Amino acid sequence: MDQLQELIERFHYEDLLLPVWLEKDRIFLINQKKLPTTLETLTIKNVDELVSAIKNMTIRGSGAIGISGAYGMYLAAVQSRGDRVAIQTAAKKLKSSRPTAVNLVKTINEILLIVEETNTNIVDQIEEKLIEVLNRQLTFEFDLGKYGAELIDDGDTILTHCHSGALAGSGYGGRALSVLRKAKESGKDIHVYVCETRPYLQGARITAFELKKFGIPFTLITDNMSGYFMRKGDIQKVVVGSDRITSHGDLANKVGTYMHAIAAKENNIPFYTATSNHTIDSTISVGDDIEIEYRNGAEVTSIQDKRIAPEGTKAVYPSFDITPHHLVTGIITEKGVITPPYDEKLHKVVQLQV
Amino acid sequence: MDQLQELIERFHYEDLLLPVWLEKDRIFLINQKKLPTTLETLTIKNVDELVSAIKNMTIRGSGAIGISGAYGMYLAAVQSRGDRVAIQTAAKKLKSSRPTAVNLVKTINEILLIVEETNTNIVDQIEEKLIEVLNRQLTFEFDLGKYGAELIDDGDTILTHCHSGALAGSGYGGRALSVLRKAKESGKDIHVYVCETRPYLQGARITAFELKKFGIPFTLITDNMSGYFMRKGDIQKVVVGSDRITSHGDLANKVGTYMHAIAAKENNIPFYTATSNHTIDSTISVGDDIEIEYRNGAEVTSIQDKRIAPEGTKAVYPSFDITPHHLVTGIITEKGVITPPYDEKLHKVVQLQV
Repeated sequence: MDQLQELIERFHYEDLLLPVWLEKDRIFLINQKKLPTTLETLTIKNVDELVSAIKNMTIRGSGAIGISGAYGMYLAAVQSRGDRVAIQTAAKKLKSSRPTAVNLVKTINEILLIVEETNTNIVDQIEEKLIEVLNRQLTFEFDLGKYGAELIDDGDTILTHCHSGALAGSGYGGRALSVLRKAKESGKDIHVYVCETRPYLQGARITAFELKKFGIPFTLITDNMSGYFMRKGDIQKVVVGSDRITSHGDLANKVGTYMHAIAAKENNIPFYTATSNHTIDSTISVGDDIEIEYRNGAEVTSIQDKRIAPEGTKAVYPSFDITPHHLVTGIITEKGVITPPYDEKLHKVVQLQV
Repeated sequence: MDQLQELIERFHYEDLLLPVWLEKDRIFLINQKKLPTTLETLTIKNVDELVSAIKNMTIRGSGAIGISGAYGMYLAAVQSRGDRVAIQTAAKKLKSSRPTAVNLVKTINEILLIVEETNTNIVDQIEEKLIEVLNRQLTFEFDLGKYGAELIDDGDTILTHCHSGALAGSGYGGRALSVLRKAKESGKDIHVYVCETRPYLQGARITAFELKKFGIPFTLITDNMSGYFMRKGDIQKVVVGSDRITSHGDLANKVGTYMHAIAAKENNIPFYTATSNHTIDSTISVGDDIEIEYRNGAEVTSIQDKRIAPEGTKAVYPSFDITPHHLVTGIITEKGVITPPYDEKLHKVVQLQV
């Protein structure tokens, strides 16, 4: 794995917060559920353990899960000494660990193609593909960050919601955080308002942890305060991630995003989403047609296992909301920033993907 | 205190959730800090203990604090057997327990006037005034509720934020909850979405507790979800309290109110505030001129003493925000509903106060 080490060094290893990495025939990953109070590293000895870690949210975020999948495939290849059937079985298990993770499924399919087409040196070829996957994700984050950083002015305070950062990606900055890191690296003086992101608190727990690690000054607020600070003139930009973007430019992201977008519009503050071209979904045009996953309401009635509401209280937890395109100032991707009107431009992006 | 008992019975004692009451020479109050997990009654033996309870938020809400003040004055009168100096000392202590509580200060000043003007039967006269204060608060809540209920349609789902209910008032419904109770009592089928109200969780802890007690069906959500449910068409009205209303109709209320108001406007949903005529402040016209009190940021970095953010995280907690009048569909008061344009109408209301 000299090549891998070389790659990581080329990208300044010390500046990365790797969500997952490999040493010999062990995968290591940061237990994201224990952040920010404990920085726990878990050792993964086989594909089954990796599948569990993905299923129970120990590791999360589309980029990080895609990379984990590639590491898992490499591990299966090494441990089986390139046994085709063993690798194919591992692929099946990994894909089923999070069937909705497009990045994961796509990465594993790429590796499966090698397995099907190669007769010799399967392990070496999978290693090469793993390097390519890592390289691609890092390059993606650098490019996205660079385009996004051009939108940020020196002295800006930027609001962000949920977690769209290093531990969800390759270790650099994922999506929204790549924009913030590149802005800082280009010498701009920035400050970040982090929304805690109830109920799961990804903002308070993970985004705050990363900003602290990367030395970007920030202030934590509750989700219901963004409007107050926008009206007060304390926020100049909003940058969030997105889980899915329709061909009209409507976006699905962590619940709460929509309210920040409305508040930004009301206060004439630009609202950007940092995303990948591959997140644009040509099969759907209107955001409201996206099915919203409801998670366990118990996450609302309790906070980290502490009950906050009366016994028997009914609560609901839609995990995402839809921000319609008229509230979106720009979509930051690895190829540049897309601005309204979106339809034709997004159509072109989707065509290029094919 | 037969008269007092009679009054409470007249107002259907069993339907009241008294925040504070009197038996012989003891005041009892519900410890609001322990809700919803524990319904603890505290016994108050003297004015000093009452002052502490007001200071440390064991009892809160303008109506409830006003009533507590009256009970405290009566207690001082009984315990001192009508000693003028003792009663005046008690008044001074009580007023200083929460100098910004207009209702408390006003109530105590009314009672002080009796002390100054009367030579005989001070205790009896203070008792009579106490009955009047209670009667006034209950009548206020009934009247406000009646006017507000006319705005609610059968089948409505109503969003509310923070706590503007029984334990903040006389035990009936305070402000926003009076509207909901009266709507239900008039036979309308309603459902309430309660916003948890971070950071102090008054919605999850107290409003949910009261709705459960009064049999009004409700669903608890995090503050960042109101926009999602409005856009989905699940919410027909917003009803919140308000701490202060300017002569232009801008209102100060618990932080988060502003974002619900913007989301309501974006989705064409009426946004009402339930308040008292006496909350309208003629000395200030523009909401943004109201000074916002900042509380301890530690309430954001921890939830009920459990840390949720990395060590050293800076957090801020503006306790209120301003909702400008263009987002306010109507102001519900004990005299009726005031609708835009506000300036002239609010001016008249203020003139009538004088």
